[in-house]
Amino acid sequence: MNIISNVKLGNILDELSAQFPEHKFKSVALKEMTEEDKRNVEVLISYDNKLDAAFIQECPELKWIAWYAAGVNKLPLQTIRDKNIILTNARGVHKVQISEYIFSYIMTDYKNVLAYYALQQEKGYHTEIRHKELYEKTICFIGTGEIPTYAATIAQAFNMNVIGINTTGNSKASFDKVYKIEERRKAFEQSDIIVNVLPETNETIDLLDMEDFKAMGEDALFINVGRGTIVKEDIFIKALTDKVIRFACLDVFYKEPLESDHPLYQLDNVILTPHITGLSTHYNRRATNIFIDNLKAGIDNRDKFKNVVDISKGY
Amino acid sequence: MNIISNVKLGNILDELSAQFPEHKFKSVALKEMTEEDKRNVEVLISYDNKLDAAFIQECPELKWIAWYAAGVNKLPLQTIRDKNIILTNARGVHKVQISEYIFSYIMTDYKNVLAYYALQQEKGYHTEIRHKELYEKTICFIGTGEIPTYAATIAQAFNMNVIGINTTGNSKASFDKVYKIEERRKAFEQSDIIVNVLPETNETIDLLDMEDFKAMGEDALFINVGRGTIVKEDIFIKALTDKVIRFACLDVFYKEPLESDHPLYQLDNVILTPHITGLSTHYNRRATNIFIDNLKAGIDNRDKFKNVVDISKGY
Repeated sequence: MNIISNVKLGNILDELSAQFPEHKFKSVALKEMTEEDKRNVEVLISYDNKLDAAFIQECPELKWIAWYAAGVNKLPLQTIRDKNIILTNARGVHKVQISEYIFSYIMTDYKNVLAYYALQQEKGYHTEIRHKELYEKTICFIGTGEIPTYAATIAQAFNMNVIGINTTGNSKASFDKVYKIEERRKAFEQSDIIVNVLPETNETIDLLDMEDFKAMGEDALFINVGRGTIVKEDIFIKALTDKVIRFACLDVFYKEPLESDHPLYQLDNVILTPHITGLSTHYNRRATNIFIDNLKAGIDNRDKFKNVVDISKGY
Repeated sequence: MNIISNVKLGNILDELSAQFPEHKFKSVALKEMTEEDKRNVEVLISYDNKLDAAFIQECPELKWIAWYAAGVNKLPLQTIRDKNIILTNARGVHKVQISEYIFSYIMTDYKNVLAYYALQQEKGYHTEIRHKELYEKTICFIGTGEIPTYAATIAQAFNMNVIGINTTGNSKASFDKVYKIEERRKAFEQSDIIVNVLPETNETIDLLDMEDFKAMGEDALFINVGRGTIVKEDIFIKALTDKVIRFACLDVFYKEPLESDHPLYQLDNVILTPHITGLSTHYNRRATNIFIDNLKAGIDNRDKFKNVVDISKGY
């Protein structure tokens, strides 16, 4: 098969060529693909957001898009489905780095990292600053997929109580309790830390409103590593400004990149990072491990494929 | 028995009085104890560093010091032994908060918390900053007692390799491998993160030298939550200045409190906190739980006592 990677895979692509001599590999950016590239490509490795419906129409042989990101919300899903193209994503490739970042945010807040750093800058030495413990606190993950499941095992090692929220409310390993999304406020009321890990789908856009933040309560730490569209910005900023919740750590935003005059920058109870929690130097290696398993299964065995996106669900 | 607490226990002391009506409890600071207090005290709850040999000579009935801290290196151990006074400490009371702090330090360094905070202050949004993963890294604890054992279980949840160093080299649960203290450099060479958790004893003072830091290597993160005397200051500052190791997070120092003109404040590869990792709002409650177990066992059953300090070892 003709396999083109828009992702700069470096050595990994050489290894693929050596491991699969029956396939033809080529590395080229999406916008630099020639007419011939498009005419012949059968498998496309990509996370280029310019991959739109018009592009797909120019690729008559395209059978499989190996999308090297998790979120597929920007892709032309209808066209991909109409053309019967397999779409796989990088689900699971993020679980390590995003889970670690969740605990980095928790530590930054709970252990007063920035206050102690300020103390160090002023060469001060006093011990009035108090920190919170994770021990026996309750953490609630909105979402119970691979990322929160991995993070939940870490939370349990810290002796935290772990709640999950999903569409069914069915129990899941590593979670002490799971609530249905409609009953989420019951979970929020019990929780000290609430972490959104949901992808963007029609069902998750603007899901949370002020009543949700009221349920989280005035001592709550809210972390968003899912998608910024989980809550309308004006509601969220009001929840923080009015101290409906205590603190937030945000890696994702309603509109990215965040503009430098964005009101979030004015708040003193928020940590902002530029959508980096999913990054990892091991990212391409981990995503390619999934790709290799699927390539070994073969394009005619799509039922054996890992990480196939259910286009009707959007993840 | 006459039980005096120099520690302000508040409600906890009322609960003790209610639970043990056969004993007489009194709360008073060490320096405010009257002649009569000293003449009659049989059990002393304290972590006042003024508790010296002269004080003990004034307390003829003293049978048990419940020391509400872990380190006993400042106590008049010889006098305590000569008088056959039981000395218990608060070993184990620190494991939760110190372990959590170890991971807070790791996150601050590995996840570039301060660099991202600087980016937020300048209202910047770019993703060039790369972070390290804990996943599959090797962490080495100098010490294999209750604190590192608790921290080791958390490290394993992060999928880290966990090495311990102790006097025997005998294997211990939660550690993948244990080295004898004499073979510590073999452990350091394999490790990405080295955490000192040792108490101060004759054997631990100035234990580490430049060869140890060379074994840790130029990418090493060194964390000290044990005692500052583990390494002479000039050696340690040279190791950091010359980048023999990459970064250090220090909660303890050779001389505390750290003076504001201390050269450590001039370094850009160090995080300093003012000996706070052992603090916890739950501290007195946890220490009292040990005290209660011992009080129930009874002063005549010192072989059943928990947390008895072996004065010959110093911990």
